[in-house]
Order: sequence, then structure tokens, then C-alpha cells
Amino acid sequence: MRVVSLFGRRPKRVDVPRLKPRREAQANINRVDFAELTPEPIAYLGQAAYLQLAIFETLTHAVAAAPTTGAKETLSRVAGLSLAKHQALVAELTRRGKDSGEIMAPYAERIDHYARVTAGADWYETLVTSYVTSGLLDDFYRSLAGGLPGETALRVGAIFSGADGHDLIIAELRSAIETNPRLASRLAMWGRRLVGDTLLIARSALSEQSHPDEARLEPVFTELIAAHTRRMDALGLTA
Amino acid sequence: MRVVSLFGRRPKRVDVPRLKPRREAQANINRVDFAELTPEPIAYLGQAAYLQLAIFETLTHAVAAAPTTGAKETLSRVAGLSLAKHQALVAELTRRGKDSGEIMAPYAERIDHYARVTAGADWYETLVTSYVTSGLLDDFYRSLAGGLPGETALRVGAIFSGADGHDLIIAELRSAIETNPRLASRLAMWGRRLVGDTLLIARSALSEQSHPDEARLEPVFTELIAAHTRRMDALGLTA
Repeated sequence: MRVVSLFGRRPKRVDVPRLKPRREAQANINRVDFAELTPEPIAYLGQAAYLQLAIFETLTHAVAAAPTTGAKETLSRVAGLSLAKHQALVAELTRRGKDSGEIMAPYAERIDHYARVTAGADWYETLVTSYVTSGLLDDFYRSLAGGLPGETALRVGAIFSGADGHDLIIAELRSAIETNPRLASRLAMWGRRLVGDTLLIARSALSEQSHPDEARLEPVFTELIAAHTRRMDALGLTA
Repeated sequence: MRVVSLFGRRPKRVDVPRLKPRREAQANINRVDFAELTPEPIAYLGQAAYLQLAIFETLTHAVAAAPTTGAKETLSRVAGLSLAKHQALVAELTRRGKDSGEIMAPYAERIDHYARVTAGADWYETLVTSYVTSGLLDDFYRSLAGGLPGETALRVGAIFSGADGHDLIIAELRSAIETNPRLASRLAMWGRRLVGDTLLIARSALSEQSHPDEARLEPVFTELIAAHTRRMDALGLTA
């Protein structure tokens, strides 16, 4: 019997009791509800594409500020993966005959502001930002993808299930924290700081027509935060 | 009868008289000499890979500063092409069992300095930098690739013959100059400013063992500048 997880790609790590039917039933309901929250495809693709571009930009700051050429090289690989996601989302817009620049434009101001306030004060914070925000947002958009029509759901779901380079970021951050243990509490705090703004951006992407009530959204966001907690664990930090 | 051009991929645009045997013979001599100037493969790959990373970083500044989401999207595509070149060069180092970060490290300081002084004061200058410096340096490294051993020469030559996104940059810049004709003289001046620093960086990449005398190098650099002139022509600017 498998605990259904909306957001975790490693459901084996979900640490809820295995035999709790009520909880499992609830997760199934969330999955259904969540697809209903998916905005229409063009809005979904435009927002998701611009967010990936913003995540790519944050990563390029991390490339520029990398302390060694090895770290720079590593971060450039992660940035490349993020750029590939953006380009795959843009390709979906192009396939629908849309001008991606025009479609993304309405989301630029809000997302640019979000990227600014989450940029981080130094290389380490910027790395945590890339890791935490791409983790939360990829989970979020992967789950919403289920509500897209037909083949699009599969293709877009695959985009958000591809390589994310998180293993590389984890290695860089763990080694930095090992060298300088005082980083741990600052980066843990920064991780917490990021969650609020990121969930707000995610919230703003939901279909406006569905007017979701907060009680319905809560379990969905609880799942997002559980996956986030596992990611902070992987850094050896408390969420 | 085809005029042999070391650097131009569009030899039909070389504006020298077609029937000038002395000139043609000279170009052939240059081709031979140039391969002799190629440093050993690891040094070549390390420098070339780090330079591509620097060009990628310059492009990411252009992504960040783009005036519209459309331009941002376009520039991110060009940045992706440049990153792919960097990654292909890194793959050549990895194939030889080298740690690319370590191999690139000795070149970082000089190239970072070069990237800083050529960064440009605004979006337009940064675009011209990406275009002019990647044009000159790709030509340069493509020509040097002929001196690499065996299959490496072919593979690396192919890396520098791939898509460069210059058509996209040209379209952005031509449209900007059309909208604001006063940009033309400033960008033409900036283009001239870039050539000196870029040729110096190229010069520093040549094999030290070969102690090339300046007289031998001159025709080689003359070809680089001819190709540069054609690129500025494509912008409607004088070199």
C-alpha cells in the first residue's frame, strides 16, 4: 500500500503512519481538487515559463558569484537545466501559436519583485534560494499539470520531473556548511524566510475562476511544505 | 575559385578582388601557421571553456537587463547556445579525465578582468559585447582547433561552428537602432573599443612555446578583423 503523495517524488520518505485510511483518502481528494485549481493552459504556461526564467536568472547570479571555478562550472550546469525547463515551457506556447514574450509579460512585474526579494545576500543564500524555490515551485507546477488538457498534461508533467541539479546544489551547500558550521543557522533561517514568499507566488498562480476556499487549499500546501522539509533535511538543516 | 578565409563562414562576403593569387596564397600560409600556434589540448580547452563561460555570463546580464519579456526570452536562448558550447568544451576535458574546474582556474583571473572591462554600460552595449566578442573568439578558437590532435580537431571545430544566436542579437540591435538612431554612433564606438581587449585575450591564448613573431601573427589578426567588420556591417554600423 502506497501513501499517495502529491508533491514528493520519493514517497517512501513521507513519514506519516502507513495505515491511516482517513489521511490517505484525504490525499486522494487533494489530487482531484488540485487539478480543478489549474488555470487555463496559456496562463499556466506563461506563468510557469516566466518563473523558470526567474529561477534561471537567480542561478546565473550564483554562477557569477561562485567562489571557485569548480563551483562556477557546477552552477552553470544547474542553470542550464533550469533554462532547458524554461525553453520546454516556451516550446509549448509556440506549439499553440503564441508569442511567449507577450504571454509572459503580465506576470513579469510580480515575479521580478519576488526574484528581487528572494535573491539572497551572498552566494550561499542565493544557492539556498535556487534550491528551495525551484523545489517548491516545481512540485507545485507538476501537481497542477494534472489539470491541463490531454497530452499537454503528460508533456508538462515530464518537464517538471526532469533533472533539477539539486544533487549538485546539495553537495556544494553541505561542503560549505561543513567548512563553516556557522552558516547552518543563517541558511536555515533563510530557508524559512523563502517559504512564505514562494507559497504566495504559487497561490497567485491558481485559477481565479475556481475561487478556492482556504480550507481546501490547506492540505495541498501542507504537502508542499512536507516536501520542503525533506529538502532542508537533505542539507542537514531544520526547516 | 573560392577565396580561402580562415575566419569567415560566409566567404562570399569577403570583399577582396577574386583574382589575386598572391592574397590567396597568403591565406593558405596563414592556415598552416595558425595550427602551429595552437597550445596543447588541455590548455586550449581550459581557456576556451572558461571564455565561453564568461560569454555566457555576459549574456545572462543581457537577459537580466532586457527591456521586454520578449527580448529576455530571446536573450535566454542565445545564452543557452553559449552555455551549450561551454558544456561541450568541458565534456572534452572530462573525456580526458580532467577536472574542468581545476583546469580552468589558472585562466579565471585574466578572463574575469576582461569580462568586467567589456561588460558594457547598458543593455545595448552588453548585447554588442556578446555579439562582437563571441564572434571574434569563436572565429579564433575555430581556427586554432585545426592544430589539435586527430578527432579532437574535428569535434572542437564543430563546437565552434554550431548555432551562435547571432541572428537573434542582430535583430534585437537593428530594431533598437531603428527606434533610436542616436544609438548607432555610440554602439559603433563601443564595438571598436571591444576589439583591442578581445584580440589581447586571444593573443594570450596562443602557444607560448612557439614564440610567434608579430609579423607572422599580423595576417591572422587581419582576417579576424575582416570578419569583425562584416559583423558590424550586419548591424548597419561601421567597424
